[in-house]
Formats: sequence, structure tokens, C-alpha cells
Amino acid sequence: MGHEVRKYGISVGKLSTGKRNAITDVPGVKVGHHTLAEGDVQTGVTAIIPHEGNLFQEKVPAASHVINGFGKTAGSIQIEELGTLETPVILTNTFGVGTAIDAVIDYTLERNEEIGRETGTVNAVVGECNDMILNDIRRRTIRREHIHSAIEKADKHFEEGAVGAGRGMVCYSLKGGIGSASRILPIGSKDYTIGVLTLTNFGTLRDLRIDGRAAGEEWHAEKEAKEEKDKGSVMIVVATDLPVTDRQLHRIIKRSVIGLSRTGAMISNGSGDIALGFSTAYNIPAKPSSVHMIPTIHEEEIDIAFRGVAEATEEAVLQSLFCAETVTGRDGNIRRSITELLSESLVPKGENP
Amino acid sequence: MGHEVRKYGISVGKLSTGKRNAITDVPGVKVGHHTLAEGDVQTGVTAIIPHEGNLFQEKVPAASHVINGFGKTAGSIQIEELGTLETPVILTNTFGVGTAIDAVIDYTLERNEEIGRETGTVNAVVGECNDMILNDIRRRTIRREHIHSAIEKADKHFEEGAVGAGRGMVCYSLKGGIGSASRILPIGSKDYTIGVLTLTNFGTLRDLRIDGRAAGEEWHAEKEAKEEKDKGSVMIVVATDLPVTDRQLHRIIKRSVIGLSRTGAMISNGSGDIALGFSTAYNIPAKPSSVHMIPTIHEEEIDIAFRGVAEATEEAVLQSLFCAETVTGRDGNIRRSITELLSESLVPKGENP
Amino acid sequence: MGHEVRKYGISVGKLSTGKRNAITDVPGVKVGHHTLAEGDVQTGVTAIIPHEGNLFQEKVPAASHVINGFGKTAGSIQIEELGTLETPVILTNTFGVGTAIDAVIDYTLERNEEIGRETGTVNAVVGECNDMILNDIRRRTIRREHIHSAIEKADKHFEEGAVGAGRGMVCYSLKGGIGSASRILPIGSKDYTIGVLTLTNFGTLRDLRIDGRAAGEEWHAEKEAKEEKDKGSVMIVVATDLPVTDRQLHRIIKRSVIGLSRTGAMISNGSGDIALGFSTAYNIPAKPSSVHMIPTIHEEEIDIAFRGVAEATEEAVLQSLFCAETVTGRDGNIRRSITELLSESLVPKGENP
Amino acid sequence: MGHEVRKYGISVGKLSTGKRNAITDVPGVKVGHHTLAEGDVQTGVTAIIPHEGNLFQEKVPAASHVINGFGKTAGSIQIEELGTLETPVILTNTFGVGTAIDAVIDYTLERNEEIGRETGTVNAVVGECNDMILNDIRRRTIRREHIHSAIEKADKHFEEGAVGAGRGMVCYSLKGGIGSASRILPIGSKDYTIGVLTLTNFGTLRDLRIDGRAAGEEWHAEKEAKEEKDKGSVMIVVATDLPVTDRQLHRIIKRSVIGLSRTGAMISNGSGDIALGFSTAYNIPAKPSSVHMIPTIHEEEIDIAFRGVAEATEEAVLQSLFCAETVTGRDGNIRRSITELLSESLVPKGENP
Repeated sequence: MGHEVRKYGISVGKLSTGKRNAITDVPGVKVGHHTLAEGDVQTGVTAIIPHEGNLFQEKVPAASHVINGFGKTAGSIQIEELGTLETPVILTNTFGVGTAIDAVIDYTLERNEEIGRETGTVNAVVGECNDMILNDIRRRTIRREHIHSAIEKADKHFEEGAVGAGRGMVCYSLKGGIGSASRILPIGSKDYTIGVLTLTNFGTLRDLRIDGRAAGEEWHAEKEAKEEKDKGSVMIVVATDLPVTDRQLHRIIKRSVIGLSRTGAMISNGSGDIALGFSTAYNIPAKPSSVHMIPTIHEEEIDIAFRGVAEATEEAVLQSLFCAETVTGRDGNIRRSITELLSESLVPKGENP
Repeated sequence: MGHEVRKYGISVGKLSTGKRNAITDVPGVKVGHHTLAEGDVQTGVTAIIPHEGNLFQEKVPAASHVINGFGKTAGSIQIEELGTLETPVILTNTFGVGTAIDAVIDYTLERNEEIGRETGTVNAVVGECNDMILNDIRRRTIRREHIHSAIEKADKHFEEGAVGAGRGMVCYSLKGGIGSASRILPIGSKDYTIGVLTLTNFGTLRDLRIDGRAAGEEWHAEKEAKEEKDKGSVMIVVATDLPVTDRQLHRIIKRSVIGLSRTGAMISNGSGDIALGFSTAYNIPAKPSSVHMIPTIHEEEIDIAFRGVAEATEEAVLQSLFCAETVTGRDGNIRRSITELLSESLVPKGENP
Repeated sequence: MGHEVRKYGISVGKLSTGKRNAITDVPGVKVGHHTLAEGDVQTGVTAIIPHEGNLFQEKVPAASHVINGFGKTAGSIQIEELGTLETPVILTNTFGVGTAIDAVIDYTLERNEEIGRETGTVNAVVGECNDMILNDIRRRTIRREHIHSAIEKADKHFEEGAVGAGRGMVCYSLKGGIGSASRILPIGSKDYTIGVLTLTNFGTLRDLRIDGRAAGEEWHAEKEAKEEKDKGSVMIVVATDLPVTDRQLHRIIKRSVIGLSRTGAMISNGSGDIALGFSTAYNIPAKPSSVHMIPTIHEEEIDIAFRGVAEATEEAVLQSLFCAETVTGRDGNIRRSITELLSESLVPKGENP
Repeated sequence: MGHEVRKYGISVGKLSTGKRNAITDVPGVKVGHHTLAEGDVQTGVTAIIPHEGNLFQEKVPAASHVINGFGKTAGSIQIEELGTLETPVILTNTFGVGTAIDAVIDYTLERNEEIGRETGTVNAVVGECNDMILNDIRRRTIRREHIHSAIEKADKHFEEGAVGAGRGMVCYSLKGGIGSASRILPIGSKDYTIGVLTLTNFGTLRDLRIDGRAAGEEWHAEKEAKEEKDKGSVMIVVATDLPVTDRQLHRIIKRSVIGLSRTGAMISNGSGDIALGFSTAYNIPAKPSSVHMIPTIHEEEIDIAFRGVAEATEEAVLQSLFCAETVTGRDGNIRRSITELLSESLVPKGENP
């Protein structure tokens, strides 16, 4: 887990990775999948859990950033207003958003009897990409129990590639899906961690860059591949234990576009490219208190977090490719694993693939 | 319909109203409700239809504006990016958003076979307020068929007050719900129309202003009423046939806050106050074409639309109060009609109530 | 100072005012004017100083909010990115912005030798309105020394009305200018203060509301006044000692539009209506440090600050009218004091004017 | 002009360049410089002129986008509100912004007698970077005549590198400054043009990428160079003759970050990274008219413009390096031309440098 790209001698950036090279290197963070893979149904759900406590009672500082807004992500308005996250982050296919909202409300109501009685409601945060190429999205196969299952299975260890919400996703005309990476951020005498999880569903082969190299263009020429119109999207979830305000967090997650761009993304019209981030450095209690103290880094210390998120996003996108197996889905549509291309390719590998 | 406030001698603003004094004065626009009113269940759905054609094929220019973001409105990210609306606007209770998204997807898939095959997905637009005082919101009573029913019943003529999504809403500690108003906008030699529909669920009695007069404070003193914490929200839907770009439309709907403020709103922390607007002046076809021409007014002509939306929003909020009957709901909670207060009040009415 | 409106029996809102009923009730905050009033030149400068220390070294948390962006305010981009203010806030006429930026840079360079050597540059914050009706703005009369003079004269006590940047401003077709008000915010066991200073230059007589009453309409009818096109602007500066993050501050200053709307503002196309706010509750040092703690109120406590800023803005606008004397300026243009109208008016005063 | 990078065998992207490979390939657009280069004073002014008519009378649709807001760009608030540009775009050093605003006002007043009389004011648009390393910025050497000179010298042909506003700028620890590039956009049967001009003042050597290759890292290792803290900024000006609304233009200029990222930018905390764009496809007259028609491309056609701006931005940054000569400035500080490094380098060049 977490090092599939590095096995090919590709090492993105200058900062050290966390132990797992995954978003779960951030203490408390867990990830779970529920995968549906049968014939025309190739889809699923991925859940990211910020901490093990009651999230509605102990919210985490959060931010969201729209890279391109041709998307249906739910819950971002409240994150922007209040700077907090109070539910797990759920990723699924575009037509699963409504069901995922319902499932997150169920989950939260069950754990918080005062909602709808003494206190208000809950803000479900659900991201999505459109997996219609490999998945028969019109069938509407996502059920509430799939979301609950993904939450329940959340663990420090999780699979990448064609799993969970990533099951049917297509990236750079290859099989994409879930990828993750992390970086260590030494600030003062302390080491913090930043982790990124991406759900990748964008790009055409010709644009793919691997650590700078125009590998996609080379393969495209070699394979005489048919050009696909880029209509895809990417969801980027960022977690950190760095003490930051929601404004600082917003600045940090905005830098995910650097890593994204370096893999070759053109952030096309049809993309719903959204970054969501949270910090586990402190909680914001639901219950009002007197004045409380928030720990924050000085703005002059933030550059290393910018670098960390840029590097981890670039590597997470590559991980989503390198971890994904070839998948055959709706109407026999096939998207191949990049690892197959690598094994066949005439293109000399050198240090880079 | 449309003139309940004016029957009390209250006439908001300087511009003329449309024939119905309602959002449906804008040609093509229709509104439908589905109401659930039995014991602890006092809730419902309201649908606003921009035009009678296939909205997904013939989108309308649109804008959204967050007045306060403690809310769960779905679909705003794509409206902001693309400046278009491609579904009916659905209003319901906070926990009905997921189901409403699903229902709108169903509705659109049924009418557009190419979605999820040749073309992408659809962006459901759903607004909400929390009706937990009068409605047992934890029961999750909204079903997909309720949304479909509201859409089907959409008509030029529609009820205001404690109906549809407004069934369980509470405004200024009184019974609120659905209210609407419209204004005529003479520009050049032509008359355009702007209409507003509000779903009101905010405010405490003491803050209520009726055409400037501090009526709420007077009643509060008279009744020795208990102060309620303001946790509510308001959804504001604006329709017009004015030829405008999405940027101009955004400027226009932003002025809804003027009318809202004049009714006494403090736009409190717990509010999800969202304005959504669309123009019916032209359509944006789903199918790509060569360069097309968009008709727009000159920016110097926009002031009358600002005034129109401010006036219509103020009157629509009042309409939601004056049209609402007293409702008894969850756990016997009661919110009274303002018309009862008016009939009992010792406060002399003069020109104003 | 601070109570001219109240002398007429007009008492806006429910919260208590600070001692001076002015922005300078916030500890540390001072205001200074430099006024130019001779013939066709009726203009000036107003400076608001957040604290007496070195602002560049000890920045204050800050926010800016664009109500309507037909304006030339400088410095807002950096406030939005970093959430800090590092200079006095300068208000002047539209064509004085460049000179005011230069003057603030001079002022800051003189006090900070490391700027442009070891450290970067400084972000001058300058707001403006267009005083072309009473002032010959084409003459470009604002000089750097006028800004320095306004800063030097800054004091707890300051004049309101036709002074400083307000000298040539026109509000609701009457003489406008500088107005201020404040409110006490009891939170927990402590009293905080919020203060507002407005530079008013917007509106037409018919729209003026005084504590809800349509006084402008009444006067308009009485005087058979000629309608003026509303092209004006308003600058709103908010200060508080409440411990808040820049996000919370942004939410607070956004509510200034409530007070503005209640005076009758239609926020017309030609307005540059900008709110700027800062908190003096803590400083952000220029020099990087390790993690520092920021004191913040719980979001559930913020409503009283919303109310405070709404009330203080409404009263500050009225103060700008009630404190302003009649001014004759460019080409003999005259704008009269509202107090003259009040003394002449046939309209019965009752509790309201 | 325009092909210095390509002479080294470096060819960025897939689209064709315009004739000059510069922003002036867009019909009507001109660029002029005024350069100050003497001892400790190494600075200047660059002016970009959208068309040759009276810009205040015939405005162009425009957009601005903040990539990172640690900057002092003036005029963006009004661009965002109204979607128009009514002056030349001026670039200069950070402390020249006030003077440049004044110079643009002078320039516009001279050509428009009605400003400040019958009509309102003018919105000067000025971007900046901090050239303190090579230029003694504290001396405040920019004068109004320098801005006027840059405007007057504007031409289709213009120099790149260490000229105009770029004279003192530092990019990737090397000499940066002004760079430009363009791309042809075939849409339907017509060829449109998009051009980019960058003022580059950001980055450290180690991060520099040339068409994907980590050239900076290689040189850094070879030279055992001292790491500099990245405090710089970049201004990106985009021109096109594509018929687009301001919203579409905003989407397009947002993609400049893709090209920026691919050169190695980390968009650090201290950066004021701003993109400004305009279209020459149609004008918006100052004088109000009845409803007018705006030509716009269909959103589905916009991807090629995204690609164009990404490619042109990447190449423009490289051009700013490859065109710049070595400059010795304040206190003997030197920043070397990349072409010197290339000639000395042991690193084998292959196809890439």
C-alpha cells in the first residue's frame, strides 16, 4: 500500500512520505470502501473518517475549494460558512449523492438524539465523479447500506485503485480510481503530516505526465490510440494534523491544483474538480462554550504545507493509476491498467517509466 | 392569491405588481406543492418550473447567492460555474434534500435517454429549511413521489402560506411558509417582470417589521411573549424575463437581502439563507452550436431590477405570514397565523397594521 | 458627538450604545480627519487607526466584504488572503486613492526600515467614494500630507458629518459624510464593543427611511423635489474587540448590509459599497513564531455581534446625515442638511421625525 | 521576439502559436515598456493596451482571478462586479501602484471630459511584483510620466526579458521579467487567438521545470547553489479575441495556474499571483443603450481555450527567463540569465536543455 508508484522508480517531489504514504498517516484518519463489481455495475463508495469520536459533537476545522464546478458535491456551502466538518466525507458516483446524503443523515441521527429536537440538522458532505463509461450509472445501484458499509470498514489500511468509489472511474483514458499519498512537514521542532486521497476520473492519455515526462504522448503515438473527449472529474480530500484555521486550510488545499496540473490535467469544462480538507489538530465542540483558543501556525510557516499537498496530490493521482487493475464494465467497455501498458511498452523506461 | 398583504392596506415599495403579484407572473414559470399535514408530520415539497420545455435540453441562465451558508442547498456549485439551471427548483425540509435529488434525477433520466450514455449527468437543484418545530423531521417522511407530485401539480395559480415545503415552517415566531410577489420593470419601451418566491423559516417576533413599522416589538410587549432563539432559514427563488447574463442575474438576486432586512431579519448564525435566480429571456441549448448571441440589458439599466427584487422579496416574506393559517404540529407545538394576532391586537392599525 | 440622532428621539435597535456611540468606543481605536473646504474644493481624508502600536509589526485580524463592487478600494485582495490589516484604514475621494496608497507606504516605510530590505512590502488599505457633485474631483487636490495629517490628528474624539473624507459626500440627496455608532455586546460575563464608521454617499431622498418610517417619501412629496439618479457609494468600517477569526469577522461585517438596507439603500449599480472590519482582540506579529493561540468565540455566540453591526450601521448612516451641515460646493451645487429639512417640515414628528 | 525558448528545442504543448508567439497576436492588442536601469534602480513599467479606441467609451469584457492574494493589484473589485476593463493594464513594482493609478486617471481624464462631471470615475487596473532584490524599491522612483511613456510606446512588437516592469524581477533564482506566448484556437471553421503576458518574480532554482524536466534540480546540484526563500509573485495578463462572457473568461484565465504549476511554481505564501484577462471580441459601450447582443461560444467549445491559456502561460514564463539578460542591481545583487547557465552547464541537453 502506498508505494506502488515508487516501485517503478518514480519518486515525486522532495519531502519525505509518511509511513504508509497515505492519507491515513494523519493520526485518527481512516478510510473504508464498499465496492460493487458485477457485469455492468462497476461502482462503489469510499468513506474518509477524520477521527473516531462523535464527529457531530466534536467537529473538525475544514475547508472546501472548487477547482472546476461542473459537479454535484454536497455540503460545501456550510463548510465555507462555518469552516467545520461534522460528518465522514463520502465519495461515490454522481447519481449516488442523494442516497449518500440520506445515509449520512441516518448515521448521524442514530448517534445524536438531540438532532431535530433540541439542536438543528446535520451537514452531509458527499463528493462524486461520473463513472458512466464502466458503470451503468442509470441503474442507480447505490444503496444506503453501501455507505454504512464503507464507514464501518474504515481502517488505517485501505486499498487503492479500482475499489470503492473508484471502481468505475477512468483517468487519462486508463483505469483510474482511488489513490493516496502523504508527506511529512517539519515545522519548528515538530513533524506534522499531510495526506491526500484522490478519486480520479479525468484526462486523456496524450496529456498524461509522469514526474514531468510526457509518457502519455509517447504511448499515444505508440498505440495509435483513439482520442477520448475529457469529461471527467477529480475529488481531492486533504487531511492534516497541522494546527491551522479554516482560512489557512483553504489556502493549503488550493495548492492541490499544482500536483493535479503536473500529472497533465487540463481541468476541462466537464470536470467537477473539488478539494475538501480538514485538520485534526483541534476540535470545535457542538456545545457553545466561552472563548476558546485555537492553535495556528504563523503564515510564514505555511509554505511547506503548500509543497506537501502539491507533491502528495501528484503522487496520489499516479497511485490511482498504478494501483488499478484493468476493468471491463458496462456494454463491455474496458479500461486498462497502466501497469499493463508499462509491461508492453516499447518506450524505454530509464529512471522514469 | 398574491394580494393578502395588500388587503390590510400594506403596500410595499413603489413599483407596480404583476397581475397575480406572484413569481408565476413571469411567462412560463409555474409552481406546484405537495403537502403532508397529519399530526406530527407537517411538511412538504414545493417545485418551481422555469419553463414547460425540456429543461435539460433548453437550460436557462441562472445564479445562486449565499446570504448565510448554514444550509444544505444542493446544486449551487454547478450553477456558479456554468451559470445555468437544468432542472426544476425543489424546496423541501432539510432531511428531504437527498430524496429530492434522487427524485429530480429520476425525473430527468426519464425524459433524457442520452444521460449517462452519450452525455453526462444532471445537476439537481434543491433548497431546504429545517421545519423541526412543527414537523417530526427525524421521521424522514419525504418520498420521491412527493417531489414528482409537486412538479406535476405546477401551475400558474398556486397557494401561499402553510403549504408545500412551507407547511411546517416558522417565521418571526409565527406561522410562516410560502409567499410570493412580483414587480413590473419598465425598461425602454418594454415591460419586463420579476417575481420572487420565499420559503420563510427565520426570525423572532420582536424583530418583525411591517413596511417599516416595528409591529413585532409592539406585539411582543402586548403578549409578553417568550423570546425564541432564531435558528431559521429562508430560501429565495427569483424569476425574471429580463435579458441578463448570469453575472447580472447574480447582482440582481443579491439585492433580495434588502427586502429580507426590511422585514426585520438579522440573518442569524443558524440560517441557511440562499437566493437562487433564473431568467427565461433566452435558453442555452445542451447541444453545442457555433457562436450564439445572448441578449443583455446595459448595466446602467439594472437598477430597476434591483428595486424590483428588493420590493418583491419584502412583500413575499409578508405574504408567507399573511397567507399562513395556524398550524399545530409535532408534540403539540403551535405556531399562530399573523392574521389571528391582527384580529386580537390592541395595537391601533392606522395605515399600517 | 455620537448622539445627534438620538436627540431627535430616534433610537435605533435594542442594544446599548458605547459611551461615545462611536467606533472609538473600541479600546485603542482612533479616528482623524483632514478637511479641504474652499469653493469648488470640498473634500478630504479620514483615517481609522486600529491601535497605537506599530501596525506593520503587530497586525490585526481583518476582513473585507464587497456589497457592490463598482468601486476602487485598494488593499482588499491581501486582506482576504491573509486575514490581516497592517496599516491605518484611509478613506478619501475616488481620485485620491493613488496618493493615499503612496502616503501610507511613506508612513510605513518611515517606521519600518526592514521593508524592501529583509522583509517584503506593505499593503495600504484605502477606501473611497466619489464626491464629484460638491467637489471638483478633476482637480486632484488630495496630497500625501493630507493623509499624514489625518493620521496624526487621530483621536478618541472625532467629528461627524461634513468633515474629512465626508466633506463633499451626498446621501439620500441630502448632505452626507461621516457617521459613527457603537453597540455593547454582552457575551458570557463580559462586555465587548463593536463600532461602525460610515462614509455615506448614496441614495435618493424618496428612499430614505428613518427607523422604519418613510420620511424621505414624505419630504419628497412635500418639497416636490427633483429625483436624482443614485450613483453613490458607501464605505463601512467596522471595529470590535471581540475575539474572532477573520472568517467570523467576515460574517459579522457582512451584516452591515442589514442596517444599510433599513435606511432605504437600494445598493444601486453605480455603488462601490465595501465593508472593512478588524478586531483588536489579539495581534498577529510580523515575525514568525512557533504555533500561537488565537482566542475565538463559539459560533453560537456570534448572533449578538450580527445584531450589533446591523444596528450600528443603521445609526451611523443616520448620524452622517444628522451631523452634516449644509455645504455649497462645485459650480454652486448645494446639498442641504437634514436638520434644516426637519426644522422646516410640515410632516408631523411624533416619536419619529 | 517570441521564439527564444523554441530556439533551444523546447516546444511547450500541442497547439500552434500565433505569428509573433506573443500577446500582441491578438488583433488590436499592443504592449509598451518604460525601463529604468541605472545602478541601484532597476525597475520599470509595462502597459498592455486592449484596443486602439477610447477604452473608457468602448470597454472590453474582462475578468480577474486571484491565484494567491499576497499582493496589491488595484482595480480587481470593479472588474469582478461589472466584468469590464476600461483602462490599459499597467504593470510595475509594488510601490509604484499608487503612482500608476494616478497616471491612468490623468490619462483617462484627458481623453474624457465628462468624467467627474456628467459621468462617474474611472477604474485604473494596476498589477505589481516586488523587485526589491535588484531594485532599491524604497527610493520610490516610478513617476507618472513613466506610465505615460509605456502607454505611448505600446506596439505590436515589444521586447521580453529584463525590460519594463520586468527589469528588476527574479524568477527561479534567475533573472526573470516579461515573457509572452500565444496559441491559435480553431473553433468551428474559425481560428481565434489567445495570448499571455507574464511578469515573473517567483520560485527557487531547485523547483524549475522546463517542459517537464527537473532542470532546476540538476543545476542546483551542479552549482551547489544557496537556497533562496521564495517570496515572489507573478502577474498573468491574458488577451483573446474569442467571443466569451466575463464568466467564461474567468474560467479561462483560471487555467493559467496549470501552466504556472508546470514550470515548477509552488505558489508560495508570499506570492501575489493574479491573472487578469480581457476579450476583444466585442465592446461594451459606456453609454446606455437598449438591449444589446453579446456573442459567446458554447460552453462545450471552451476546452481548447483552457489548453491554450495553460500552454501559453507555461511558455510565457519560460520566455521571461530565456529573454532576460543578467542584471546587477541594488547593493551589487546579481541575478543571472538562464542562457548563461545553459551555456556553462554540464547537464546534457538532449532534446530538452
